[in-house]
Amino acid sequence: MKKELSIVSPELPEGFVAAGTACGVKKSGHPDLALLYSETEAAVAAAFTSNRVAAAPVRLSRQVAGTGRCRAVIANSGCANAATGERGEGDARRMAEATARLLGIDPGLVAVASTGRIGTYLPIDRIEAGIEDLAGLIRSGGNSAAAEAIMTTDTRPKETAREFAVGGRTARIWGIAKGAGMIYPRMRVAGEPHATMFCFLLTDLGAEPGLLRSALSAALERSFNRITVDGDTSTNDTVILLANGASGVRAEPGSEGEAAFRENLSRISRELAWMIVADGEGAGKFVSIEVGGAKTAGDARRAAAAVANSLLFKCALYGGTPNWGRLLAALGYSGAEIAEDRISVSLGDLEVVRAGLILDPAPERAGEELRGKRIDLRVDLGLGEGRDVYYTCDISPEYVEINRG
Amino acid sequence: MKKELSIVSPELPEGFVAAGTACGVKKSGHPDLALLYSETEAAVAAAFTSNRVAAAPVRLSRQVAGTGRCRAVIANSGCANAATGERGEGDARRMAEATARLLGIDPGLVAVASTGRIGTYLPIDRIEAGIEDLAGLIRSGGNSAAAEAIMTTDTRPKETAREFAVGGRTARIWGIAKGAGMIYPRMRVAGEPHATMFCFLLTDLGAEPGLLRSALSAALERSFNRITVDGDTSTNDTVILLANGASGVRAEPGSEGEAAFRENLSRISRELAWMIVADGEGAGKFVSIEVGGAKTAGDARRAAAAVANSLLFKCALYGGTPNWGRLLAALGYSGAEIAEDRISVSLGDLEVVRAGLILDPAPERAGEELRGKRIDLRVDLGLGEGRDVYYTCDISPEYVEINRG
Repeated sequence: MKKELSIVSPELPEGFVAAGTACGVKKSGHPDLALLYSETEAAVAAAFTSNRVAAAPVRLSRQVAGTGRCRAVIANSGCANAATGERGEGDARRMAEATARLLGIDPGLVAVASTGRIGTYLPIDRIEAGIEDLAGLIRSGGNSAAAEAIMTTDTRPKETAREFAVGGRTARIWGIAKGAGMIYPRMRVAGEPHATMFCFLLTDLGAEPGLLRSALSAALERSFNRITVDGDTSTNDTVILLANGASGVRAEPGSEGEAAFRENLSRISRELAWMIVADGEGAGKFVSIEVGGAKTAGDARRAAAAVANSLLFKCALYGGTPNWGRLLAALGYSGAEIAEDRISVSLGDLEVVRAGLILDPAPERAGEELRGKRIDLRVDLGLGEGRDVYYTCDISPEYVEINRG
Repeated sequence: MKKELSIVSPELPEGFVAAGTACGVKKSGHPDLALLYSETEAAVAAAFTSNRVAAAPVRLSRQVAGTGRCRAVIANSGCANAATGERGEGDARRMAEATARLLGIDPGLVAVASTGRIGTYLPIDRIEAGIEDLAGLIRSGGNSAAAEAIMTTDTRPKETAREFAVGGRTARIWGIAKGAGMIYPRMRVAGEPHATMFCFLLTDLGAEPGLLRSALSAALERSFNRITVDGDTSTNDTVILLANGASGVRAEPGSEGEAAFRENLSRISRELAWMIVADGEGAGKFVSIEVGGAKTAGDARRAAAAVANSLLFKCALYGGTPNWGRLLAALGYSGAEIAEDRISVSLGDLEVVRAGLILDPAPERAGEELRGKRIDLRVDLGLGEGRDVYYTCDISPEYVEINRG
């Protein structure tokens, strides 16, 4: 059996259709309503924000995901339907019900997602009318329209797909994501997987919900749960994975199909997570911060997250100036065990901190590296085997201007 | 006995002298070297950053403070002497030794503080020459020169004093502070008090080091440990309190003198802490965030700190636009126990969130309030008796520009 791993041009997996339209939630008239639909039964796994002020659609979709079965996702941009109380819950239900009517399925099989401003009510009549309009738009080529309709401050749609062969059959995973600000996914320690991103994944592979949840949980810990734009964890972020089995490939526990699925799900999740960071509000640089040599894995995560969230360090990244003191300060307050004289830091291949000392000859070459679009930082704490990576971007004056309103 | 509480024009307490000069640490030629000196024996209490990458002067001064006795503080701006290894430790010692020679005292009675860029070495020869130059400048009127010499990105010096009568005698507390960025003081749970601010307090009251420590610890928890500009905890911040007893007023445990001292120390600390926030890099607004009704005091602190550090919310404060959704989101991810439908929020006298719902008629009046220079927010979580307050400022594009280098 040959296992092919390749990034393909984004197309929906077998048995899925999609649509996107503008229904008037956004005053700009830009697309703001997306539908994803599996023509046959599908298993579901999902992850939701750990924010205790969770939006109405998050609470509804969490219930749907709990059943293990889901056939449709209806999503709007332009309004988050968060901090909207009982009326917001009713509106989320009405979105699910209108979608169920359109598709002739049980409302309990429809997940709902909303993104946009917190604390305003959905224009639910316009959304219901929009859902009716989707009837004429649903098709296997509707993927890109759906990707566009979930955008908020994103400057471009985020869509990707992969396919892989198992036992002579080919399965596909396709995904879209959105997000540019209020991005700092954080996972709960216990319970079902919680993430804080907005991402929809469809696959024509067949799998039980339990296996999907386990694979999604692992994928999140290398992707959406390791990115930050601004350190603000959203009330609405949602990851939904539907698997309808239409490819004939099945991922049984322990099978080659499972291994191939897990690998491709991780890759596609990371790819979409990276797209979000690269499109961070006002950002011009993609930055990876790898911390190794930590006393524990938790310490590595804390240290990488502190650097990735340091406003001062990210301002220096924007300026393209080497300011390793700010990076060291962030490591120092991260809560991770630190021995200052064991810290080393590399920028790409260039060593910039050795034994806790900032190297003198580096600043000019480092400045050159830092003015690039892609910055790879590696920190070695010199204390153990713990390792983790966060992905982030710079913070520019434009970020502040985008968010002043 | 009458207890007078009054803010007075800043003058040094009895038995203290001060000086400030420019010795060339700063390329701009601005003042960068300050000396505070008690002409007689003085007791000391001090608090230092909890950052695990602590600067060389912090490590030296922590030892001095541990003895309970200290007569002089020598401080420079323009270079933090942090991440400088053994050479940095030697430089900090040389600063103490040169100061001790000048004053004819034991080097073990000299505390050292440095602030400025991390990861560069002190121009120690220039500093030693500057310390010699201070000889001709030391005087009881040297207070303002010292306040100016510790400034970095501060736009104005921060100096204040209070006096109070006990048993017919008058004691004075005087203080200066600096700081505008890399400001997020955090206290350790155990051990001696740790803070992350740069503040020097002198009093001619007499007290044992133990009482000073206890009073300083209490004062910090209502002042420097409750402010944030950018969420970045410094490697260098230092609070030093010297008490020389020259007023003849003594604070014995349980005495009226102690009560008056504690009250005035708390007030002066809060006043200086507020000055720092009001002068935050690029900031135009002073913001207090009071959280009440929390399940525990820890929850109140977490909730207030999360709002005070939310980059998104602070961008909205800059814009003067009401964006209560971002405030609710920050409460939701703070880690505090939250019941969304019990949250209420007031802006000054104006209720803006009730039972978790953002009030419709408020936005315009709220917008007017938010365009002011002083913003008072009160959050009630509706769950218990926990209460705490943080003080912060807005984040502007100018903050990013100031810190791009």
